[in-house]
Amino acid sequence: MLTMPVTETQWSATEEKIAKAAFDTAYRREVESMMAEVKRQAETAASPDELWKLHDFLSARRHDLDGKYDFRDSMLIFVFAQLIKEGWLEIGELEGLSRDKIAKIKALTIM
Amino acid sequence: MLTMPVTETQWSATEEKIAKAAFDTAYRREVESMMAEVKRQAETAASPDELWKLHDFLSARRHDLDGKYDFRDSMLIFVFAQLIKEGWLEIGELEGLSRDKIAKIKALTIM
Repeated sequence: MLTMPVTETQWSATEEKIAKAAFDTAYRREVESMMAEVKRQAETAASPDELWKLHDFLSARRHDLDGKYDFRDSMLIFVFAQLIKEGWLEIGELEGLSRDKIAKIKALTIM
Repeated sequence: MLTMPVTETQWSATEEKIAKAAFDTAYRREVESMMAEVKRQAETAASPDELWKLHDFLSARRHDLDGKYDFRDSMLIFVFAQLIKEGWLEIGELEGLSRDKIAKIKALTIM
């Protein structure tokens, strides 16, 4: 996660709604993907080592998700850029945000 | 796990073999039971919360097993008593150990 200072960004009520929907969509997709992987690993596990591997996987994903899905206004631009880079969201799903925000998000996705 | 000082106990080669077999049997049973529970939880999980519950379960079981299966001579009497109390082993599966050891293990199981 980037730690550079964030310029103050205003979000209108409409933008907040669009952002929340996109945020929830990405979260749902990522959780579904993780869920499928957990079920696959659990189903095929045949030894303690494979259970501990599943445990390590869950620890890492939980930590990652806890940190990543940060809905504070000041973080959203970065969160969306990361979600797009990781494939959980498409830029088109943020339609309705100001040009300025879209431009910032696009710029961050190529970094 | 009890932390009282342990009296020095000698284990013959035969006893070591019996102990190792019983130890492995209990471990296999406990892991199989845990594996079944993990598979059940993973299969029925339908939300992130249920995945985190599975994660918590694995964390606790891993920690518990790491601490419990201690094959040091000085700990075996306590380990066997605990495994019997928890139902992973029966006292009869320790047949061949000295009367003294069996008596100590039995005494600990009623504490």
